Amino acid sequence: MAKQLIECVPNFSEGRRSEVIEELVAPFRTQKGCVLLDYRADGDHNRLVVSLAGEPAPIQEALLKSTQVAIARIDLEQHQGGHPRIGAVDVVPFVPLRNITMESCVELAHTFGRRYHEETGIPVYFYEEAALRPERKRLEVIRKGQYEALKSEVTNPEKRPDVGEPQLHPSAGATVVGARKFLVAFNVNLETNDVTVAREIAKTVRGSDGGFAHVKAIGLPLEERGLVQVSMNIVDYEENGLHLVLEHIRTEAKRWGVAVVETEVYGMIPAAALLDSVAYYMQIADFHFNQVIELRLLEMLGDDET
Amino acid sequence: MAKQLIECVPNFSEGRRSEVIEELVAPFRTQKGCVLLDYRADGDHNRLVVSLAGEPAPIQEALLKSTQVAIARIDLEQHQGGHPRIGAVDVVPFVPLRNITMESCVELAHTFGRRYHEETGIPVYFYEEAALRPERKRLEVIRKGQYEALKSEVTNPEKRPDVGEPQLHPSAGATVVGARKFLVAFNVNLETNDVTVAREIAKTVRGSDGGFAHVKAIGLPLEERGLVQVSMNIVDYEENGLHLVLEHIRTEAKRWGVAVVETEVYGMIPAAALLDSVAYYMQIADFHFNQVIELRLLEMLGDDET
Repeated sequence: MAKQLIECVPNFSEGRRSEVIEELVAPFRTQKGCVLLDYRADGDHNRLVVSLAGEPAPIQEALLKSTQVAIARIDLEQHQGGHPRIGAVDVVPFVPLRNITMESCVELAHTFGRRYHEETGIPVYFYEEAALRPERKRLEVIRKGQYEALKSEVTNPEKRPDVGEPQLHPSAGATVVGARKFLVAFNVNLETNDVTVAREIAKTVRGSDGGFAHVKAIGLPLEERGLVQVSMNIVDYEENGLHLVLEHIRTEAKRWGVAVVETEVYGMIPAAALLDSVAYYMQIADFHFNQVIELRLLEMLGDDET
Repeated sequence: MAKQLIECVPNFSEGRRSEVIEELVAPFRTQKGCVLLDYRADGDHNRLVVSLAGEPAPIQEALLKSTQVAIARIDLEQHQGGHPRIGAVDVVPFVPLRNITMESCVELAHTFGRRYHEETGIPVYFYEEAALRPERKRLEVIRKGQYEALKSEVTNPEKRPDVGEPQLHPSAGATVVGARKFLVAFNVNLETNDVTVAREIAKTVRGSDGGFAHVKAIGLPLEERGLVQVSMNIVDYEENGLHLVLEHIRTEAKRWGVAVVETEVYGMIPAAALLDSVAYYMQIADFHFNQVIELRLLEMLGDDET
């Protein structure tokens, strides 16, 4: 059988202390069969996003080791940052990449979630494709009110964790585990310090308020830079191309008399998402991804393996 | 020693008869060590562009076999098409890809050119980095007046072939062999049937008339479609990004009151050329190519090999 390949993108609530960041990442560097693709810390968000690729078993081992670091080094009671979170290890999504179905990734999420709770004592919520309650498909429903509110609300029946007792870990909170499609984190920075502009534009772009069906968006201040940001997750880039989302935001920003300063692709992105966008802006007709020399070579190398 | 990897992009003067095109391409399909990346025939140009990657020796073997097909099946006396040409096998460039220098590709071009003439009787001109006369660095100098003019001018000292007697092959003309950087073929189609517009815009964009230093451009009619085309070779996409060239043409076209209908990337293109352009249009700040998941995986697979 061909090797199963998944992506995993754990998010940790630490984006400032570089020595803690390196400790959190270390297990992903050393675990054989788990490849550290990328990791990016953001001081404003006070958050670390790690991108891994590899086989399911070694990725799970490394996740459990890294979680022990998070428990020892991160205290949600002290944590502040611009990005919503409920835990030291905030979110752990499994993403099918090659020779594995979404259904298998859901099963993987459930198995891992139970083991994770057993070994760490941290309660677990399942989200997206792995959700056990329909409303929990949406991460923002689980994370509403964040750690501070969830501490007391966790005893409410509708807030009860999917794995574990209705009580947060005293310093590490709770963790959201799930399975989903490849998610592109895409941010647009606007030249104003009025966060209202970013929040209002975020409303018009996100599916939950009638915008693009596969876009999640929030408006945030980037205080250190004196800018604001429309911070987005593109949940299905094939359906909602980055170029369409950006052009929408450019139009809305113009209405506010505010310039787009720059955009950010945060973490990893599939080549197809960028190639769709470049073909759009450059009006490239009849373009095939296998015209890109590196993609053809990757395909050929992939064929040799099997 | 690591395997040497080159690209080779032979251009044949046949873009209409599909059975001849398949015969020309067949040797590249069957030769071990030579990978047929892509081939594209264009009826208006009446030209076939083949992209190969692989090791130098097998690529040369397959080229010689394909040339025998070209000699048997293409007659320049009968050939008509929108693209300049002097031979049935018009141009054969060798391009360094991996573990091989430009100097070695120049040596390869010279060795191949001599053997090619011995086995086929077709005279050879060396161009670009492999040019033996400085003015022949430029393909358009060699091809000036095309096959029809070269037939008589070949006896002039300044038109004498670099390999072979001063006489064209009676049906296959002459062949230009050389070594160069990765070349991106990029065309912009304009909504007019007035070829003057394409020709005037081509003048403003090409280096030889004061435009972009690393862009070659001609204006052509696309008679079947009732459009005109600015047909370009971007000789150094790192220096002259596709986006800059396209924006220049969009501005010029506006001046003529003519719309850009579409663009074409013809044949293979390195990922970097497209990623530079998408970052430009989307204002992506601080973007690294190793954020693209396929490029990271290719790098990892490449590392495993050595």
